[in-house]
Amino acid sequence: MRDIQKIVSDSFAAQGLMQHLGARLVSIEPGEVRIAMAPSPEISQQNGFVHAGALTAILDSACGYAALTMAPDGSDVLTAEFKVNLLRPAVADEFVAIGKVVKAGRTLTVCTSEVIGVRGGESKTIAIMQATIANLANSG
Amino acid sequence: MRDIQKIVSDSFAAQGLMQHLGARLVSIEPGEVRIAMAPSPEISQQNGFVHAGALTAILDSACGYAALTMAPDGSDVLTAEFKVNLLRPAVADEFVAIGKVVKAGRTLTVCTSEVIGVRGGESKTIAIMQATIANLANSG
Amino acid sequence: MRDIQKIVSDSFAAQGLMQHLGARLVSIEPGEVRIAMAPSPEISQQNGFVHAGALTAILDSACGYAALTMAPDGSDVLTAEFKVNLLRPAVADEFVAIGKVVKAGRTLTVCTSEVIGVRGGESKTIAIMQATIANLANSG
Amino acid sequence: MRDIQKIVSDSFAAQGLMQHLGARLVSIEPGEVRIAMAPSPEISQQNGFVHAGALTAILDSACGYAALTMAPDGSDVLTAEFKVNLLRPAVADEFVAIGKVVKAGRTLTVCTSEVIGVRGGESKTIAIMQATIANLANSG
Repeated sequence: MRDIQKIVSDSFAAQGLMQHLGARLVSIEPGEVRIAMAPSPEISQQNGFVHAGALTAILDSACGYAALTMAPDGSDVLTAEFKVNLLRPAVADEFVAIGKVVKAGRTLTVCTSEVIGVRGGESKTIAIMQATIANLANSG
Repeated sequence: MRDIQKIVSDSFAAQGLMQHLGARLVSIEPGEVRIAMAPSPEISQQNGFVHAGALTAILDSACGYAALTMAPDGSDVLTAEFKVNLLRPAVADEFVAIGKVVKAGRTLTVCTSEVIGVRGGESKTIAIMQATIANLANSG
Repeated sequence: MRDIQKIVSDSFAAQGLMQHLGARLVSIEPGEVRIAMAPSPEISQQNGFVHAGALTAILDSACGYAALTMAPDGSDVLTAEFKVNLLRPAVADEFVAIGKVVKAGRTLTVCTSEVIGVRGGESKTIAIMQATIANLANSG
Repeated sequence: MRDIQKIVSDSFAAQGLMQHLGARLVSIEPGEVRIAMAPSPEISQQNGFVHAGALTAILDSACGYAALTMAPDGSDVLTAEFKVNLLRPAVADEFVAIGKVVKAGRTLTVCTSEVIGVRGGESKTIAIMQATIANLANSG
């Protein structure tokens, strides 16, 4: 049986960008993965908000790992494409990307994800993604 | 008259993420901006390729700054949304994002961008973006 | 006070394409609009499934009218862009597009919609859309 | 050897929606397909412009058939997803969708297409699409 906790954690640890952005895995469940990231000057755009590229990085990894939890044994995943809408300026104390599988297929899995910004007691959706993830046979 | 070289360079220098990813401005022309980035372990995904989030960061900034070169005087730009297709594994000696304005509007500007991977004498398109950029009145 | 039932119904009746595709308004609530369509050879692709263009037509109208229910008084809406994922072959007895507002803004409203295929007692999601709708001042 | 003229023409003729919208195949070349459509009240939205759903139908078919011209022998194509930006009100004497293959793959082909509106001597880009097309083994 596949140990999705180990499979996802190991892959996440191998993503240099996640560490470089200060992102961390929050939870791994079948079909749903959460990744958190704190704001910092290193991930900002020109107004001091978090850059869309950094938000996309955690949106994409959350989608990819959600897909990986439901992929056939021994397969790896690769993002084919995604689309992101930015709903509000990315200002918050913490950003949590929640990736969910909408439809798991043999070769393609469709996912959505959103970034929630948490500030004080409030949560707001900052960005949403709709993504297509390809399943690849793994030589491992 | 607007000095687009200065406007774009100053804004780029204020994007913490661009420096953090090792990205640099290559050229600024009316309606077209180029940004380059070298591969490194800090911007990789689990297979050692450059992460889609890092590619998206330079695709998005290239689109946003291409739009800014054609925006009304004194206005700033903010990305409303984008879509990215990843065409090949992001393996190259250097990545160059080329952002171009397709249609400049009063409130919305539509841009496309692509990331070219350069390796040896060869150039290949790694990823393509289609984006919508909003013009904002600037208080400055 | 705006009569969203009348505003949306009148606009829908003026959309020649909706009639031409056999689509009909099912419900109009603040922030959510539903449009139904039955399969027919006139809206098919080469395998006899409903064509993505016909699905997109009701996905887009459902998003646009959901946005219109929350738009400022006297304004009209125009789709700026959308992205559609097709999850399954479009085979069903009836297709219902459900459009919902995710974030209503002054100039841009972000919506999602899905097409549900109903067959026998079963419902399946056939396609999903993520869209950006522009609010336009109306001369009316 | 594959006869792409016949393969595409036969498939197009089987798409009920193309006939229903008054669309016609203009040209078929390896990696590029053109489809034209005239405006009419049957394909309009509420302001009398051509509906985004009708534009999407020819954008999508142009992408799909461009992909089909480069697909492996005996395979069929199915659209996985697309994104459309609407650049201008769809007002013209004729609309021509031009679909082009950006990257042909074994299982996925990425295409772009645009709708050109022709009026008087002038041509304007009305809408652009970025799409992912899946290759399917054909039982035929």
